[in-house]
Amino acid sequence: MPEVIILGTLALDSVETPFGRKDNILGGSAAYAAFASSFFAKPGIVSIAGKDFPAGHKAALEAKGIDLTGVKIEGKTFRWEGFYEFDMNEAKTLKTELNSLAGFVPEIPDGYKSAKYVFLANTDPEIQLQVLEKMDNPATIILDTMNFWIQHKKEHLVKAMKKAHIVLLNDGEARQMFDTPNLVKAAKKVLSLGPYAAIIKKGEHGALLFTKSHHFNAPGYPLEDIKDPTGCGDAFGGALIGYLARAKSHDQAVVRKAMVYASVIASFNAEDFSLERLKQLTHKEIEGRYREFVQMRNF
Amino acid sequence: MPEVIILGTLALDSVETPFGRKDNILGGSAAYAAFASSFFAKPGIVSIAGKDFPAGHKAALEAKGIDLTGVKIEGKTFRWEGFYEFDMNEAKTLKTELNSLAGFVPEIPDGYKSAKYVFLANTDPEIQLQVLEKMDNPATIILDTMNFWIQHKKEHLVKAMKKAHIVLLNDGEARQMFDTPNLVKAAKKVLSLGPYAAIIKKGEHGALLFTKSHHFNAPGYPLEDIKDPTGCGDAFGGALIGYLARAKSHDQAVVRKAMVYASVIASFNAEDFSLERLKQLTHKEIEGRYREFVQMRNF
Repeated sequence: MPEVIILGTLALDSVETPFGRKDNILGGSAAYAAFASSFFAKPGIVSIAGKDFPAGHKAALEAKGIDLTGVKIEGKTFRWEGFYEFDMNEAKTLKTELNSLAGFVPEIPDGYKSAKYVFLANTDPEIQLQVLEKMDNPATIILDTMNFWIQHKKEHLVKAMKKAHIVLLNDGEARQMFDTPNLVKAAKKVLSLGPYAAIIKKGEHGALLFTKSHHFNAPGYPLEDIKDPTGCGDAFGGALIGYLARAKSHDQAVVRKAMVYASVIASFNAEDFSLERLKQLTHKEIEGRYREFVQMRNF
Repeated sequence: MPEVIILGTLALDSVETPFGRKDNILGGSAAYAAFASSFFAKPGIVSIAGKDFPAGHKAALEAKGIDLTGVKIEGKTFRWEGFYEFDMNEAKTLKTELNSLAGFVPEIPDGYKSAKYVFLANTDPEIQLQVLEKMDNPATIILDTMNFWIQHKKEHLVKAMKKAHIVLLNDGEARQMFDTPNLVKAAKKVLSLGPYAAIIKKGEHGALLFTKSHHFNAPGYPLEDIKDPTGCGDAFGGALIGYLARAKSHDQAVVRKAMVYASVIASFNAEDFSLERLKQLTHKEIEGRYREFVQMRNF
């Protein structure tokens, strides 16, 4: 039985960065999040893929112990094509083909319903709400989103946020959603909706945690060689929920450690295309970089 | 005798932010740096001001124990006029009047020459070099600069950097100077010129320290109310050299603590216009926020 349920996309990505181009590689928020989560707890994915989804991609997910019984197979797989410029800061989308994702109605296998840890990765907030309705009684719900939903489905998004324990936003999304340049103010607005914690992801600058009584600053890892930052935010969220599931807690002291592990996994993810680096990643490497995080903020 | 020599500008600033407008207020890199430094060690300024420099501004500097015998009085004071938009991230310059700064040749009072700690705040690198030539044998030289000098006086700037122990750059300047989007690569280029340490200032995102064998990440302080960020970078540099002078060391463990104190002082500086907040700032408040920094990075 999966311990962590991850709702998100499975995709065939075509990505170009200054370090090369790769076509039809494994991507999507659920793929990145589940891979990252798998280092800490057993994930199950709720998603949809097409009949063209390569057997190799499926095998790669299964090799990480990821449960795929919540993945519908229908039509053609969602495709994303994008590129990064010299500074690698922002993905530029060239093409999005929704394909089977367009009519996706999530189905939750019975074996998933009692799971206590849920990560609603970036997807339509209406679908995020549908998944929550079908779960028994999750102990921790983490919700992620993106600018598109803030712009086009804000009411549903607010509704979904109200049901979440932890809301993830990147800095631009936080500013956009709450119409303020100040991240502290934006985080307070998140908390006023009900969530216990707001986490603001700032890419290479790390991430901030705000609860009513605490704030925490997780550093970014200063990577000298970034090959492809696609999926780092999803990997961050996946590792976060995985760590909380392993710790069976979302106390803020636990969330702090979880954020550092999430930063560790996300930093490895950027070192190669698709999930290539996470496929090879060992617990020894994770612990080594975690210790480096401890060192790099020691004063 | 001053323990810390600060080369920089004294200015009359006119600043507009979303929180108001102030005219002819005390500004300039030397003013901010010396104020910040004064919490840790006795600073002396090398600069120039005009006959129009208000007695009140002079008295404010002297009230902090700042030695002004290295300040020439000649012609009219350097003036800067600028504003900040909603996001407060970047000063937009409306007007710069160099005035007496135009022909400035620094003179170092005899009482300054044996000082061991020197902060070359943002000024013409030729003037930075002239000051270093006149000092006896400083133990620690910190150099700051800005995009203008990178663009127009790169050769002199490189020469000055080679003589510094610690180079401060903001992230944009680091990328510009070394023609790379990657801050780790830029920092390594700084170190290859000779400095013992490179510090990359990232505004609200904190600052990074790189030495040949260590890296450190100082968090930014999540301020909810920023009134005027002018001078925060200068205050950071001034507090940094002041702390090192007090500790009589630039070992990397000391530089880490110094960077956190520098972040503390810079965060207070943004809370009001000009040096108003630093005028009122107490050691108790500094220690209180330092403890908050310890808390906010604890995991």
